[in-house]
Amino acid sequence: MKAIQDYYPDHFSHCYGCGRLNEHGHQIKTTWDGDETVTRFVPKSYHTAIPGFVYGGLLASLIDCHGTGSAALALAKSQNIVLSDNNAPRCVTASLKVDYKRPTPIDGTLEIRGIIKELKGKKVVVEAKLFANGELCVTGEIVAIQVPDNFGLKMGK
Amino acid sequence: MKAIQDYYPDHFSHCYGCGRLNEHGHQIKTTWDGDETVTRFVPKSYHTAIPGFVYGGLLASLIDCHGTGSAALALAKSQNIVLSDNNAPRCVTASLKVDYKRPTPIDGTLEIRGIIKELKGKKVVVEAKLFANGELCVTGEIVAIQVPDNFGLKMGK
Repeated sequence: MKAIQDYYPDHFSHCYGCGRLNEHGHQIKTTWDGDETVTRFVPKSYHTAIPGFVYGGLLASLIDCHGTGSAALALAKSQNIVLSDNNAPRCVTASLKVDYKRPTPIDGTLEIRGIIKELKGKKVVVEAKLFANGELCVTGEIVAIQVPDNFGLKMGK
Repeated sequence: MKAIQDYYPDHFSHCYGCGRLNEHGHQIKTTWDGDETVTRFVPKSYHTAIPGFVYGGLLASLIDCHGTGSAALALAKSQNIVLSDNNAPRCVTASLKVDYKRPTPIDGTLEIRGIIKELKGKKVVVEAKLFANGELCVTGEIVAIQVPDNFGLKMGK
């Protein structure tokens, strides 16, 4: 199954967290899994906080990009968009809240799950839960806003 | 002036965001600047969100590590600790809130300023403001908790 990030237009695909065209970045992939969304990620050994545990900034980053990806999936569904190359909606983050419930062990695959809490116009609220070895380690919520298709083409460089 | 990260014990100095011993990481440096705290950081060209602008996950990471560093500075001051090698208090993040006010331009130095809002026992609340070219782009708040000196030595690997 292709991920939402595979359908973003090229100029929206350079994000360090989720852009398929950013060779230095994390290139996360977000898909539906039933009514929820899911992203899986394997941290590098140097993504440490205290040795043995994942750096909180990476966990926030994963929740951020998983949130905008989940929001884009939800918008595509609500707008009856049949996803194909370059036609996915794209969101930016308005706000991000992360609660670190317990230290997240660094060995193994992290699973971030998303629940669409609200979708109103261009605004989507996504609740996120991050699991390591099946144990809930981090929770979060992001507010994502859909941007115009030409966003960044005028503002960026 | 040395930064708080220069005084962390070695086993607390591997954080991807602020550890002086993490050669892959950001190695941010946090100091007092009057009653506030400050960290400056120059993003790499690949730390993009939409081209031209900084990736939100990096901005959250900077606020996170600037927050724990600021909290450690405040704890050292409140506990009358004269900082020297390996004796700085160390905090972890309990929660992080980030509001993206406007896209953050990627060229130039980012300045993150911290204000100590509350210090009660081992808990410190830090408000953060992130500026690019003197313009406020992101605000945040973190709740940091001081950890025991042997934290991670038993739990980590």
